[in-house]
Amino acid sequence: MSYILDKCISLKDAELQLSQASTREKNLALEKVAEAIENSRKGVLDANNLDIDNARKINMSEALVDRLKLDDDRIDGIIEGINTVIKLPDPVWKSDKVWTIENGLTISKMTVPMGVMGIIYESRPNVTVDAFALALKSGNCILLRGSSSAINSNMALVKAIKDGLKNSNISPNVIDFIEDTDRKYVSDMLRAKDYIDLIIPRGGKNLIDFVVENSLVPTLQTGTGNCHVFVDETGNIEDAIPIVINAKTQRVGVCNACETLLVHESIGKDLLPKLYEELKDTVEIRGCEKTAEIIPANEATELDWAEEYLDYILAVKIVKDVDEAIRHINKYGTKHSESIITENYTNANKFTRAIDASTVYVNASTRFTDGGEFGFGAEMGISTQKTHARGPVGLEQLVTSKYIVLGEGQIRK
Amino acid sequence: MSYILDKCISLKDAELQLSQASTREKNLALEKVAEAIENSRKGVLDANNLDIDNARKINMSEALVDRLKLDDDRIDGIIEGINTVIKLPDPVWKSDKVWTIENGLTISKMTVPMGVMGIIYESRPNVTVDAFALALKSGNCILLRGSSSAINSNMALVKAIKDGLKNSNISPNVIDFIEDTDRKYVSDMLRAKDYIDLIIPRGGKNLIDFVVENSLVPTLQTGTGNCHVFVDETGNIEDAIPIVINAKTQRVGVCNACETLLVHESIGKDLLPKLYEELKDTVEIRGCEKTAEIIPANEATELDWAEEYLDYILAVKIVKDVDEAIRHINKYGTKHSESIITENYTNANKFTRAIDASTVYVNASTRFTDGGEFGFGAEMGISTQKTHARGPVGLEQLVTSKYIVLGEGQIRK
Repeated sequence: MSYILDKCISLKDAELQLSQASTREKNLALEKVAEAIENSRKGVLDANNLDIDNARKINMSEALVDRLKLDDDRIDGIIEGINTVIKLPDPVWKSDKVWTIENGLTISKMTVPMGVMGIIYESRPNVTVDAFALALKSGNCILLRGSSSAINSNMALVKAIKDGLKNSNISPNVIDFIEDTDRKYVSDMLRAKDYIDLIIPRGGKNLIDFVVENSLVPTLQTGTGNCHVFVDETGNIEDAIPIVINAKTQRVGVCNACETLLVHESIGKDLLPKLYEELKDTVEIRGCEKTAEIIPANEATELDWAEEYLDYILAVKIVKDVDEAIRHINKYGTKHSESIITENYTNANKFTRAIDASTVYVNASTRFTDGGEFGFGAEMGISTQKTHARGPVGLEQLVTSKYIVLGEGQIRK
Repeated sequence: MSYILDKCISLKDAELQLSQASTREKNLALEKVAEAIENSRKGVLDANNLDIDNARKINMSEALVDRLKLDDDRIDGIIEGINTVIKLPDPVWKSDKVWTIENGLTISKMTVPMGVMGIIYESRPNVTVDAFALALKSGNCILLRGSSSAINSNMALVKAIKDGLKNSNISPNVIDFIEDTDRKYVSDMLRAKDYIDLIIPRGGKNLIDFVVENSLVPTLQTGTGNCHVFVDETGNIEDAIPIVINAKTQRVGVCNACETLLVHESIGKDLLPKLYEELKDTVEIRGCEKTAEIIPANEATELDWAEEYLDYILAVKIVKDVDEAIRHINKYGTKHSESIITENYTNANKFTRAIDASTVYVNASTRFTDGGEFGFGAEMGISTQKTHARGPVGLEQLVTSKYIVLGEGQIRK
């Protein structure tokens, strides 16, 4: 594995300097990177055109080609993203826990960078820069492995990043990129536990499952969201309808979109016909038997309850009460984002406590589970696991901690 | 894997109730468990005698037999441990972050139990009860897999725990134990990622490596500690000598004991002869060439720098300056506990910032890295990884978080 090992050793060598860099040094480096991307605009777009041509040659769907595509607006967006990260507070070497124990030792729990992070991602080339900017600001070196379809765009962006860093106090060796898209190098990366501290897969379910199943490095699972909205017996229909429409249709291809609507049996007859009128032209309804008695719906099977459609499809199920809703969500959900629409205090309380998910809403759309919306400024993804970080992963989730213990000769009795 | 799967399903079923239990219910359950262990004292000791007899039949070393052994004092200690956990603050459903975003949504980051934890541990039967008490107090179900040598003791203790729980509001199904010590069930446990949220191996390096390399469930690495004390040029020798003696010999078999002493070249001639006088009767010195010029020492090889002796052996190396000490520690250390003895402010600052370890000391023994000493009350081990939790793992490190978002009909624009 010397191809990956060489990269790992070089990143590890750069780790100490970056971990000690001041906020000003990191921000100046990010400014230089933004400048370099601005100056490489033409080269990046040319490289991207090559990727687009190659994609069309292999008949990639236009939806995927669009994800791959860069244009001046999208490059503006990438640069804007760097400027956003520059303005965010530095998460490193901060503490909210300092205490002194009986023998006089003072213990401070300080935030420190993880070290080296690995990101394995699909198609969208903007991730290359977004992930780098978050890593640099949090003091972490980064090893990137993008998809083969975006290889030329990604390499052009990484070159621009390294060019920018050359004009700064931060070494260009803090970032490396796997130019050879042979899958065996992904496996090598997943085994490099002595060099990489955390691997974050960003992409579809297959990628995430592959990484989690094969990695010896700790991973942060992001992304899959089979999210539910449950309209309770006392739910306000005036609120419920726009919330369901928003959660389902504002953007269908995202992990915090609603995939299944659960409806209390006593409100179904009021809610569903009105909702159906709003959705019928754009959204396919797949309903349980009781749903189909109220509105036209294709038959939902067991598979529908578990599926993340990422499409204009909504599964609908009538449930007896909040307890059945909770059981259904905890069984089929992916622990991402879940919402109850209710005016009943006890049920709201029960739902928020019993649902096992990163984010639980009362009377709001699931679409708010997002680093930007939460006020984190930017995010590396939404974690659906329970260890390390849960929910939107911003700068504060990309650091670890170190206890500093200051003494005057204390020994243990 | 239906043997393990059945246990997992039963634990998962018990998860929701335990996660919602009040502090009072959990403390009452722990009191009942303490009572039940008191009442089962004779049965537990009889079972332990069986284990001891079996161990001696296979010629287990007396040191290991001692780790396995229970007596009235040790059972008192186990019960005392439960009482300590009862007194600790409940880590569940607390928040230090509540904020409101522009559209009026209020977001609370609440602590919640992980769900189901797996513990794989060696020899000492008290871990059965200690781990259970910490899991219960943090609202987590627990699946235990102890060593075959302690099987009878562990089963007697688990029976007592379940008997105690039967007299409480908490289901006895919150704890399960793998009675069949066939190793294939460990592998099944490590693959049960849909049921177990976190696996903590407690034991030697081989066990930990096996678990980390084979687990699909997120793991928390605990234990291995190749810890250093570095005596800098300006280190106070009056402090340095007791600190090194304490760190090396107060208890040699523990992970926060010192294994290598690094000495600044300009203080070696003063420090080492005095230290040698104190250690020569009990501790074997393995030194670098320069050390051997000052005091009698066996030759240290490359392997010595990397080894966790857990024994009355100390590796000693003369270094040029604090930078060489930092490089040595970051290369050979296990990111556990590292100490600098210095009166130089700049070097103290550099050492605490540049050393990559869970706990970094100035002018104190490494032996304080411990949940009890830190004031956590009790611990599940010392994490040497960077994700999730680093350093002593107490109740606060055994929970995850959930965002609760309270709205009034908000949708995303």
